[in-house]
Amino acid sequence: MSIKAGVVGAAGFAGIELCRILLAHPEFELVAATSDALDGTPLAEAYPAFCGVTELAFSTHANTDFAQCDVVFLAVPHTAAMGAAPELLAQGVTVIDLSADFRLKDPAVYEQWYKTPHVACDLLEGAAFGLPELFAEGLAKAAAQHAQGKAVLVGCAGCYPTATSLAAAPAIRAGLVDPAGVVIVDAISGITGAGKKATERTHFCFANENLEAYGVGTHRHTPEIEQILGLEGRLVFTPHLAPLNRGLLSTVTMPLAPGAPTPTIKELVALYQDFYAESPLVEVMPAGVQPKTASVAGTNRAHVGVALHEGARMIIATGAIDNLGKGAAGQAVQCANIVCGLPQDCGLSMISVPV
Amino acid sequence: MSIKAGVVGAAGFAGIELCRILLAHPEFELVAATSDALDGTPLAEAYPAFCGVTELAFSTHANTDFAQCDVVFLAVPHTAAMGAAPELLAQGVTVIDLSADFRLKDPAVYEQWYKTPHVACDLLEGAAFGLPELFAEGLAKAAAQHAQGKAVLVGCAGCYPTATSLAAAPAIRAGLVDPAGVVIVDAISGITGAGKKATERTHFCFANENLEAYGVGTHRHTPEIEQILGLEGRLVFTPHLAPLNRGLLSTVTMPLAPGAPTPTIKELVALYQDFYAESPLVEVMPAGVQPKTASVAGTNRAHVGVALHEGARMIIATGAIDNLGKGAAGQAVQCANIVCGLPQDCGLSMISVPV
Amino acid sequence: MSIKAGVVGAAGFAGIELCRILLAHPEFELVAATSDALDGTPLAEAYPAFCGVTELAFSTHANTDFAQCDVVFLAVPHTAAMGAAPELLAQGVTVIDLSADFRLKDPAVYEQWYKTPHVACDLLEGAAFGLPELFAEGLAKAAAQHAQGKAVLVGCAGCYPTATSLAAAPAIRAGLVDPAGVVIVDAISGITGAGKKATERTHFCFANENLEAYGVGTHRHTPEIEQILGLEGRLVFTPHLAPLNRGLLSTVTMPLAPGAPTPTIKELVALYQDFYAESPLVEVMPAGVQPKTASVAGTNRAHVGVALHEGARMIIATGAIDNLGKGAAGQAVQCANIVCGLPQDCGLSMISVPV
Amino acid sequence: MSIKAGVVGAAGFAGIELCRILLAHPEFELVAATSDALDGTPLAEAYPAFCGVTELAFSTHANTDFAQCDVVFLAVPHTAAMGAAPELLAQGVTVIDLSADFRLKDPAVYEQWYKTPHVACDLLEGAAFGLPELFAEGLAKAAAQHAQGKAVLVGCAGCYPTATSLAAAPAIRAGLVDPAGVVIVDAISGITGAGKKATERTHFCFANENLEAYGVGTHRHTPEIEQILGLEGRLVFTPHLAPLNRGLLSTVTMPLAPGAPTPTIKELVALYQDFYAESPLVEVMPAGVQPKTASVAGTNRAHVGVALHEGARMIIATGAIDNLGKGAAGQAVQCANIVCGLPQDCGLSMISVPV
Repeated sequence: MSIKAGVVGAAGFAGIELCRILLAHPEFELVAATSDALDGTPLAEAYPAFCGVTELAFSTHANTDFAQCDVVFLAVPHTAAMGAAPELLAQGVTVIDLSADFRLKDPAVYEQWYKTPHVACDLLEGAAFGLPELFAEGLAKAAAQHAQGKAVLVGCAGCYPTATSLAAAPAIRAGLVDPAGVVIVDAISGITGAGKKATERTHFCFANENLEAYGVGTHRHTPEIEQILGLEGRLVFTPHLAPLNRGLLSTVTMPLAPGAPTPTIKELVALYQDFYAESPLVEVMPAGVQPKTASVAGTNRAHVGVALHEGARMIIATGAIDNLGKGAAGQAVQCANIVCGLPQDCGLSMISVPV
Repeated sequence: MSIKAGVVGAAGFAGIELCRILLAHPEFELVAATSDALDGTPLAEAYPAFCGVTELAFSTHANTDFAQCDVVFLAVPHTAAMGAAPELLAQGVTVIDLSADFRLKDPAVYEQWYKTPHVACDLLEGAAFGLPELFAEGLAKAAAQHAQGKAVLVGCAGCYPTATSLAAAPAIRAGLVDPAGVVIVDAISGITGAGKKATERTHFCFANENLEAYGVGTHRHTPEIEQILGLEGRLVFTPHLAPLNRGLLSTVTMPLAPGAPTPTIKELVALYQDFYAESPLVEVMPAGVQPKTASVAGTNRAHVGVALHEGARMIIATGAIDNLGKGAAGQAVQCANIVCGLPQDCGLSMISVPV
Repeated sequence: MSIKAGVVGAAGFAGIELCRILLAHPEFELVAATSDALDGTPLAEAYPAFCGVTELAFSTHANTDFAQCDVVFLAVPHTAAMGAAPELLAQGVTVIDLSADFRLKDPAVYEQWYKTPHVACDLLEGAAFGLPELFAEGLAKAAAQHAQGKAVLVGCAGCYPTATSLAAAPAIRAGLVDPAGVVIVDAISGITGAGKKATERTHFCFANENLEAYGVGTHRHTPEIEQILGLEGRLVFTPHLAPLNRGLLSTVTMPLAPGAPTPTIKELVALYQDFYAESPLVEVMPAGVQPKTASVAGTNRAHVGVALHEGARMIIATGAIDNLGKGAAGQAVQCANIVCGLPQDCGLSMISVPV
Repeated sequence: MSIKAGVVGAAGFAGIELCRILLAHPEFELVAATSDALDGTPLAEAYPAFCGVTELAFSTHANTDFAQCDVVFLAVPHTAAMGAAPELLAQGVTVIDLSADFRLKDPAVYEQWYKTPHVACDLLEGAAFGLPELFAEGLAKAAAQHAQGKAVLVGCAGCYPTATSLAAAPAIRAGLVDPAGVVIVDAISGITGAGKKATERTHFCFANENLEAYGVGTHRHTPEIEQILGLEGRLVFTPHLAPLNRGLLSTVTMPLAPGAPTPTIKELVALYQDFYAESPLVEVMPAGVQPKTASVAGTNRAHVGVALHEGARMIIATGAIDNLGKGAAGQAVQCANIVCGLPQDCGLSMISVPV
């Protein structure tokens, strides 16, 4: 069996990582990779990691025949995705979108944060939310539709929302967290998170040997985290940049629900391990051990740690992912696997370099 | 004028940075640098940055004549410092301690966190706290005593407490912060913060391309931050490591006092700028600008930023320092300057490499 | 089919990379991983990249039953390898050695450079040299013996010799290089090349933001490169360290043979491409393109570039590998593949992260 | 005394480093810093390292009154420098040029390598070559003219030529090197060497964790090195990029003159030390010790090491500098010091961070 897949926006960081995963995937076949700017350029010329791996060249969006694809991944900026998705779906092609366009359920929230009206509101309700460990049901429904030959749409979770929600959800869903309390998320990302565009922010000499917070109070992943975790108005999210390529660590501090007994750390770890017992790509660290992003770099895995501040009655949970892996391309393939009836970790068993 | 200075534990990271600063200082003269392990080795052999700069060699603690010194800096681990300080003071030598031994006012708290009894409790009350921007009075008193020929003791603040307190103190001292609320501190340090000892944690290949939290709930700077900011039991402090040499960024999220009107960001920035108006080494960023650690690396400067989450009624303040500069050696020299009657920034005007 | 494999010295950098490759290999099954220091510790505890991947724990050399293995990889320091190999071979186990012990054909040269007598000289003649692209014949012979049930020994090439020889061999074997001329090799390695031992050299803060040459005129890979390329006494090899984890770039400057016509760059590239036409893991860059180590990091691939200085009549060839991949563990598995009758790139098709 | 200085092209990497040095210089006063793109922007806004250090803002070239300056530094690209210099000189302003425009004595060579005719050929003969340790005489002559009120022009050496020539000149000038032999230079630069422009080459994610050669056979510093060392047609220069901000290491392999006796390493080191005995900013390492770029980062110092391959009769010399310090801005200030009659290391005594 071979499922034909295309990647739109394949020359960007998430797009080219999709190509890497799909080229090694046992069930998907990469048949198209678009980049209007690099039309005709072999992938291996733009990214020499592909030398000797594939002869495929980038094509433009316009000159690509998407009808040959069973699944198309959209790795284009927001607004471009909601521009491209309707036509693909109309052609019967299942769409896995990595942008923000189909994540937020409320178009008014979208417009507030992205400063542009949503132009494909009719697709929002039907779009499955692409974070399999937390939203299995929607993806299962999409898989059922896909199995019946219907093109479906998945809006994959962003990188910060993924790491943050994997760290926070077990405690919140178990009712351990104060439903009126404020959750503090301080997260750190490697520079691939800032994208391929060459700017002062992504210049080696400005990013290297530097730490900084950015987008304080204004980062667009804020409403997405609020939506996933039910934290509307109760989230303070501060992202930071650190000098590494791949890796995202989210540290989530959550107030325990008042009145309820404080769990022991042992109970807390057990709760988390139970929560992810059926998730092959999420590992919960033992008590006292913190996850390292290096352990998941280059993979679709997530490592989660949890700790407790008894005096302040706070849970401190940490989630480590590769922002381009589980935070983008890997997660998109995981969603595509599910939609296509494959094991969710099919082609995603990569082990990070141990050092 | 020349003030004779010695550095005990000069081969460690804070110690050797002290040597760098003192060798270029217009008023201090470095006359002794001890390292029992490197006795007889020229500084320039162990650290080639000093080639052509100084002929000084390390001496052992035992064979060093500290009586020639006006000021001795202790850059040794905790417990070693409280072992060495009494004798130096008895010899009439002013002591600037960079360890944790004379920071915590309550020896019981010391014993709780450092798992060893304090053996120089009698010195605690008289020790000035070495964080000049927040504890000017104690240092002024020490300066007055020193001017009268009395040897004095300064216990300098640690790296995380310095960055955190510089970011938090203006808001807390102005009464803006909920006196019953929990303050969340997520801080990130470069690897020099882990010290010179070669371990798996400091191995390039494990530290590079990695992010991790560590010492969650157990880091020994916790009681020090609580003491400085009056946060006993109301602090959740989570330190992280990132792959850079020098730089420490502390992100402090503080709940606004209930009932009081929410300040505007403009008012908040003005409050911070007023607070540090007389501090030549602290700069407050304009509204919307976040400090970068790269801007203060290699210096004794601190950059502070402040933001506001109106909905959640939280202040988010960030403090950026060089953990070996303002977080250790630079601050110690700043304290020594004050004690010796010099301008606090004497010999500390270094500008970070702009890129 | 499943070929049972063991790794001796599995906790070191080459050893643990072997584990990573073998755990994902379709034909080998990792049944033992030894580390005397970490006996009983799960691989996933020492290297969390393996969390959720394997339950295997390190065992000691003494308590490991190697007789169950078809192949054992020795990832121990020189001298330890020649201590362990004879017994394994006697047990009928094929040995793939990553150390220097079975690379040099002349035990006198070994003793000269390694300052210790060779204690398994009788194995030297029979050992196949593990650099498949250049020494296919010896490995084919070993494969034939292995197919007949005979345990064989492979001494794999070192990291610098591999990158250097892949870059230089096509020109030298074609007779383009002056047989009396001196070849200059300046090579740069990432810090994993310095090994797992925590020392000042491998300390993040000393290695980071630094470049240095080391072992000038004394590096032990010198006689190995001389042997491979037939350069006895005509090689100047200067290795350097640069601040990255994985990657080795060797720049080889070779004088053209006097009298012969200078080839065009087009002819030179064609010669190289022909030379590696049957080598699935070596790619020759087009004229004017230089290989990047990032393109092969985490893989067993090698990228080679070639240029010409017509005026000085010199060939400048560059070879890029991952020092732990094609320079160590990957190459060892490639050799094991060949010996076991598998395609040489079986389980070695990993694509480097494109960014 | 205060010597008024201006920097043209002050927002680039060399230009802003000039500002850093000049702002801390005891004799120069920075009165103008031009950047057409950042007109009106405070230096401290574009480069927050200057917060609290200076209120100076960038001005455009056109709206800057250079007549107020005693010395103007040109930190603009080649061609722009030769466009600006004549007018400044005509105004009586001494010009220190960091570009390539006044380095090459032969305008035909300039045109060959820079693909544009030289438009200020009349200034070439009078321009002093800015590499004080090797060309003291020309600078002394310029100083004499400057002392008489005459505006003079200095064309400072480039980064690769500086490191390479400091490493090679003592041996070559002593006649140790074969006058018909080919000299091989493999040099490695940090990414600041690639300039401020945000491109794929300077993007953090492409530069990080990578090593590559570039400009093989075509780098424009080739004719400059040939001119300095008298190596016309006998130089093979291969530059490389490594992932660090500042630092340049040049490894120079030179054939010993035939017939002459091979010096001992002790004699060679002594020769080098004698050569630089009067140079306060160059240090020669002892035999067996290699220079590290980290030891000179952020400074105007150079560290040189020398080794010997007796069998191949080759000298291997290494030179370590900060490409923006001794390789650009620092050297320019050193030249300006000399021209203005100051000690050559005035304001250049910075010590690198030891770690």
